[in-house]
Amino acid sequence: MKRYKDLSKRTEKIEGSPIRRIARLLEKAGEKESIISFGGGAPSLAPSQDSMNYLAEKMKEEPQKSTIYCSTPGTLKTRKAITDIIEEEEDIKIDPEKEITLTHGGTQGLYATLQTIINPGQEVIIQDPEYVGYPQTIKLAGGKIKRLKTTWQEDFQMTPEKINEAITKDTEVIMIISPDNPTGRMLTNENLKGIVEIVEDEDLWLITDDIYKDITYGDAEFINSRKYGARENTITCNSFSKTGSIPGMRIGYTYGPEHFIKNITQLLQYEALCINHTSQIFLQHFLRERGKYKRKYIKENVLPTYKHRKNIMKQELEKKLPEAGFTDPEGAFYFFVDLSNYMEGFKDEEELSDSLYEEEEIVVIPGGYFGDEGKNHIRLTFVSEPEERIKEGISRIEKFLKTKK
Amino acid sequence: MKRYKDLSKRTEKIEGSPIRRIARLLEKAGEKESIISFGGGAPSLAPSQDSMNYLAEKMKEEPQKSTIYCSTPGTLKTRKAITDIIEEEEDIKIDPEKEITLTHGGTQGLYATLQTIINPGQEVIIQDPEYVGYPQTIKLAGGKIKRLKTTWQEDFQMTPEKINEAITKDTEVIMIISPDNPTGRMLTNENLKGIVEIVEDEDLWLITDDIYKDITYGDAEFINSRKYGARENTITCNSFSKTGSIPGMRIGYTYGPEHFIKNITQLLQYEALCINHTSQIFLQHFLRERGKYKRKYIKENVLPTYKHRKNIMKQELEKKLPEAGFTDPEGAFYFFVDLSNYMEGFKDEEELSDSLYEEEEIVVIPGGYFGDEGKNHIRLTFVSEPEERIKEGISRIEKFLKTKK
Repeated sequence: MKRYKDLSKRTEKIEGSPIRRIARLLEKAGEKESIISFGGGAPSLAPSQDSMNYLAEKMKEEPQKSTIYCSTPGTLKTRKAITDIIEEEEDIKIDPEKEITLTHGGTQGLYATLQTIINPGQEVIIQDPEYVGYPQTIKLAGGKIKRLKTTWQEDFQMTPEKINEAITKDTEVIMIISPDNPTGRMLTNENLKGIVEIVEDEDLWLITDDIYKDITYGDAEFINSRKYGARENTITCNSFSKTGSIPGMRIGYTYGPEHFIKNITQLLQYEALCINHTSQIFLQHFLRERGKYKRKYIKENVLPTYKHRKNIMKQELEKKLPEAGFTDPEGAFYFFVDLSNYMEGFKDEEELSDSLYEEEEIVVIPGGYFGDEGKNHIRLTFVSEPEERIKEGISRIEKFLKTKK
Repeated sequence: MKRYKDLSKRTEKIEGSPIRRIARLLEKAGEKESIISFGGGAPSLAPSQDSMNYLAEKMKEEPQKSTIYCSTPGTLKTRKAITDIIEEEEDIKIDPEKEITLTHGGTQGLYATLQTIINPGQEVIIQDPEYVGYPQTIKLAGGKIKRLKTTWQEDFQMTPEKINEAITKDTEVIMIISPDNPTGRMLTNENLKGIVEIVEDEDLWLITDDIYKDITYGDAEFINSRKYGARENTITCNSFSKTGSIPGMRIGYTYGPEHFIKNITQLLQYEALCINHTSQIFLQHFLRERGKYKRKYIKENVLPTYKHRKNIMKQELEKKLPEAGFTDPEGAFYFFVDLSNYMEGFKDEEELSDSLYEEEEIVVIPGGYFGDEGKNHIRLTFVSEPEERIKEGISRIEKFLKTKK
């Protein structure tokens, strides 16, 4: 009989991530033209060709210099390029030497941030539905998860009132993300301001996950929460995966008060040593061209393309699933659709999603993966497929739900 | 007055890494020709130009495909390329699907491994002197460090006898590294075999850090400890930083029993999401060419160059510091030199190292950074400087120590 030596309690408790299931489905989807994917949240745009060429030339001309170690928080040149952009675009000054570190994508930023600020037993307030990566990352730091329930009927808003009700003596952190995954909502300025006030009054940490800040569709502009205060209590995690279309280059950043950056950098020394150097070279070019790139690719190419697809999906959902509940996303890549009125004959939304895939070759993500409030919901991304296939996909869902009824 | 919000106890306890001090000195050394560096352990060879060119072309031709997400343990193609090499070179079969994961360098492999197998309070046996990264990484997992003292007089060997004396009911892990940093010693086959027997008898975990396995100078060949047994209790961490001369590309791997790989992969999902994709493309080419590369670069170029420099440094040390104690390194990049007979007039080896840098522009690493047994020692790397500068450097150390006496 095979013997299995015990592992740590810490990892025995981690729940297998639904991301893996999504990834498996998407791998299959990539192989077969007839499968329509509303599943993954990977950008469907190629990265800046100019910046890729720049990196390629550097690697050929200076192979050793491009691949040497750098200091743990990244080269000062890369950090400064990032803080310059934050000042220019968000009007917030960050000291590139003391208030920012690079991270191995946004994922490592969130992991290391929570490890750096949470002691076991402290509570972290997040929204429900929430990004699938949050709960386990909080648990790995020993934190307790406090979910704030929100619904499409109230525009998925996290209100100061709800937060005040949820706070206990153990509350240590509020995490926000705007635009949001999985719902696409942006926090109203009033709610953002109210949250910052609570953070100041209660002396909490505020983590802002800014991953979708460049991907917005309406009039509402992204606002750095520091504009409303609580600067010494605020930590921001971000990544270039979505906005630079380079998820596989694993590069992001985290900034916050100096004493926090000192400690997170010490942790990262033993967790990562330093961040990929070639990705930093890409980034230096990409950020130098940022103004041009943002106008050309994001404003003139990405946003109009995604916005058009979003509007098509909205129109199709309204027409073909009239009893579904959802909001018009203000940013990010997703519709979070309430199918409560279509659930007859299904055990839950996971069974519905499975059947939909098996019978109609449509990939959707079961809402339950995103929290209790995701029950009877599915998440649909509109960035992976062109107009005709979005129409075809929603038609197949319509047909499938009608057949079942 | 500025207010500092509390951080987690876990990171408050991390000791600032001496690596940072080394990095600062080396940054200065890079600027000034007169400074001779025996400090850092970064490879002084450029990476394979063919593999760099291959990656550069892929990035130009397939920018999106080169930068997409991949599954957490890395693409199966990369994993299989690695397990094929392990089978070919070490005669050990590893299942690429279930027994290996990529990591963000060897550093993340060690961090995530310890997080996956250690519960707070369990003991980890390491050698003293030890690699500077081990102690804090063990502490971050809640482990207790048990140091086995070794000296140059006994060839820095970790013997089964010493381990047996050190084991308590709380012992959970033995960590070994051969060839070793900072001493360059390889474990004798007899000791390796004895350690594996203890691991089996006591049902402990064995972590083998194989980072220097390709860099050996004598007749002794690196042996995978699994040849002696304990396969289900053994975890290996490695990286391509030293052997591929690509430390800035942050790519390594960890392999071990299936249930361990399942849990470490779940942890890595939330700590890293996935490993850099461009580095994997480099690696696929590099490993395909491995046989050729290993012969051409490692065997015909790196090893003769490093071995020559090692012999020069040995000869100079014997001639110019006749009262110093050290062994002839069998692998890795370092001499670990006992200067007890030269310490008169110095508070400790850190003061000596500082003065040596200030007065003679020689960078060496104080032995105390590597544990209690490093007292009165310094670590000298022989890979960074050519023959003439090694001679010049040791002469300056001789002159410096004579002046002080």
